[in-house]
Amino acid sequence: MLVLPGARPFLPMLLQTMPFTVETQYARFSSLPLDCGVTLADVDVAYETYGKLNANRSNAILVLHGFSGDAHAAGTSKETGQPGWWSNMIGPGLGFDTDRYYVICSNVLGGCRGTTGPSSISPETGKPYAMTFPVITIADMVRLQKMLIDSLGISRLLAVSGGSMGGMQALQWAVAYPDAVAAAIPIATTARHSAQQIAFNEVGRQAVMADPDWNEGDYYDGKPPARGLAVARMVGHITYMSDASMREKFGRRLRDKDALGFDFSVDFEVESYLRYRGSRFVDRFDANSYLYITKAMDYFDVAAGKPSVAAAFERTKARFLLISFTSDWLYPTYQSREIVSALRSRNIDVAFCELAADYGHDSFLLDTKRQGDVVRGFLLSVERDLLPS
Amino acid sequence: MLVLPGARPFLPMLLQTMPFTVETQYARFSSLPLDCGVTLADVDVAYETYGKLNANRSNAILVLHGFSGDAHAAGTSKETGQPGWWSNMIGPGLGFDTDRYYVICSNVLGGCRGTTGPSSISPETGKPYAMTFPVITIADMVRLQKMLIDSLGISRLLAVSGGSMGGMQALQWAVAYPDAVAAAIPIATTARHSAQQIAFNEVGRQAVMADPDWNEGDYYDGKPPARGLAVARMVGHITYMSDASMREKFGRRLRDKDALGFDFSVDFEVESYLRYRGSRFVDRFDANSYLYITKAMDYFDVAAGKPSVAAAFERTKARFLLISFTSDWLYPTYQSREIVSALRSRNIDVAFCELAADYGHDSFLLDTKRQGDVVRGFLLSVERDLLPS
Repeated sequence: MLVLPGARPFLPMLLQTMPFTVETQYARFSSLPLDCGVTLADVDVAYETYGKLNANRSNAILVLHGFSGDAHAAGTSKETGQPGWWSNMIGPGLGFDTDRYYVICSNVLGGCRGTTGPSSISPETGKPYAMTFPVITIADMVRLQKMLIDSLGISRLLAVSGGSMGGMQALQWAVAYPDAVAAAIPIATTARHSAQQIAFNEVGRQAVMADPDWNEGDYYDGKPPARGLAVARMVGHITYMSDASMREKFGRRLRDKDALGFDFSVDFEVESYLRYRGSRFVDRFDANSYLYITKAMDYFDVAAGKPSVAAAFERTKARFLLISFTSDWLYPTYQSREIVSALRSRNIDVAFCELAADYGHDSFLLDTKRQGDVVRGFLLSVERDLLPS
Repeated sequence: MLVLPGARPFLPMLLQTMPFTVETQYARFSSLPLDCGVTLADVDVAYETYGKLNANRSNAILVLHGFSGDAHAAGTSKETGQPGWWSNMIGPGLGFDTDRYYVICSNVLGGCRGTTGPSSISPETGKPYAMTFPVITIADMVRLQKMLIDSLGISRLLAVSGGSMGGMQALQWAVAYPDAVAAAIPIATTARHSAQQIAFNEVGRQAVMADPDWNEGDYYDGKPPARGLAVARMVGHITYMSDASMREKFGRRLRDKDALGFDFSVDFEVESYLRYRGSRFVDRFDANSYLYITKAMDYFDVAAGKPSVAAAFERTKARFLLISFTSDWLYPTYQSREIVSALRSRNIDVAFCELAADYGHDSFLLDTKRQGDVVRGFLLSVERDLLPS
């Protein structure tokens, strides 16, 4: 484990008591055609489910994780004892009410948490793919999810939803599989990555690739590029927070010091926090997955090859709920508005909420009280209109 | 020279025709006491001057550079043939009118462009200081500038001005040497670095120190930490621009490609630009200076040891002009307003302009038409009240 000097957690993790435990499941698909032209063989998918599928198989909701998430979205993991990344949104009586719905979450293609990615063993060579893994897209991720949903015998999802990169997948679902999606809830996301979003991702990639331990991606027999990946994650964390939330959480408070140290050890609380988050990330995330998944986000443009974002939705049948957050400067509200406006111009049913929240982009993970209410209400209306009563 | 693959300039530098040429001058001071308690011996200062000092020595303006600037603020350098970093603000008829004023600019302490810094030879060891260089502060930089001004026989500056870190120095001048400053023009700056500003600097430092070529700062006999420094600079560049200016300048345009490459070479124009800026920076900037100067910015708090920002100005006699820019999210307008409010509460004469500009933090360097007008008008009023007619 990499521990940068001075790295310390800011607050102990709040280990909530989860109402249920859950075990990660796995599915395998013999081949997956990709946008780049390559067909990937023997693709594994890690996924979890919460709640019960009804007899009509009509109450399934697919939840899609963000950049560094995984299949463990809710409940207590049997393997790790940890809560899921959206435990405050998925459960009995929550936004995604597991008393009503059957919620599925799978780890994305290209990831490193059970689904096939660059750290997986290539069936051709018997060694990790590393940089021989093909460059993937959000559409590829969604294509694999469609296979999973088909294999579960679900022909139409009641809803697809996710924040950030999860929101991109939700959009892609509605565009690519119009008959398989009744409703889409893209949160804190965009129809296409902007220059600034690409720029932050590119810096992260360069930080990873600048680390000699990256070794052109061939590090699985040795040390991972821990320093480079930690730097990349530190940049990411700044973009996930807001100026206001950082001021409130850290301000200029010193860490274990009464006065400035006049050296290059940790002076400020915020430095310690970032070093800690960087260090921890290295233990749970693969550096090559970092490269591939950020690239997939940068490539995402729901309107690619179309004259406009509106044109991308021409076959879409889903109704939509879009959510953005006032302090999110990484995926600012104007990007959600662009989607809303495109949907409206196609006469597609769309609701939009910009929620006041101080946590920046992380708000969709942290400030979930009102988000949960809005999602629950929207799902009830979808259910009322679509499910047999 | 480090050249990251795919790095390319976005636009050719506009080599303006400068109205005058200029040569960098040097001064040496035998000792400089520092805030950390150390006294530095044999300190060199690189500086340039533009215009003529009047007989009363009362028309001198000290211009203070930002993080990576140098003494070459205006005119054409005799050594390099290059224009100065504020050539659009300093010259005949410009904001700082060299037909009226004697403008001085010096490279900061800790820098690497002629003034003593970590890459300078220590008189004690005969080797570069490297990380034995003491940790310096904005107040230390200003103390050295005061020695330079004294040595030029100037007892009171008509004005001090600078953007970003230059603005911090301007504030520090007004606070530390109240009798030596008639007017201060801090631009796009803050009374103290926020958690977010510290965070971005910390990421840059970690990127440099993560590079094995950094070698604990001891690299002057070998390769500099070029990859780490390039990554640090790339992060910096994103923060200097704005979402809007990046969208306008780059959007999602591809570089030398008709379609996405499905590999990790450069796809987007913005990636190419950032790689280019990162690569170029390595040729002109010392990595240890990067560490020391960012630390000085992070340490800056004009109110340190005082109950409030207002209290910091209790002895200040200067009148003020504050300027901020609408699209500057690195040094947002609220930080200038905090200074304005503190000055007002002390009944200090202060004017404030928030200028509409799309270039983000870089606006003070790029969008200088109105800034120049505002500065020129302010200086004329200062001159009218203070200079003998």
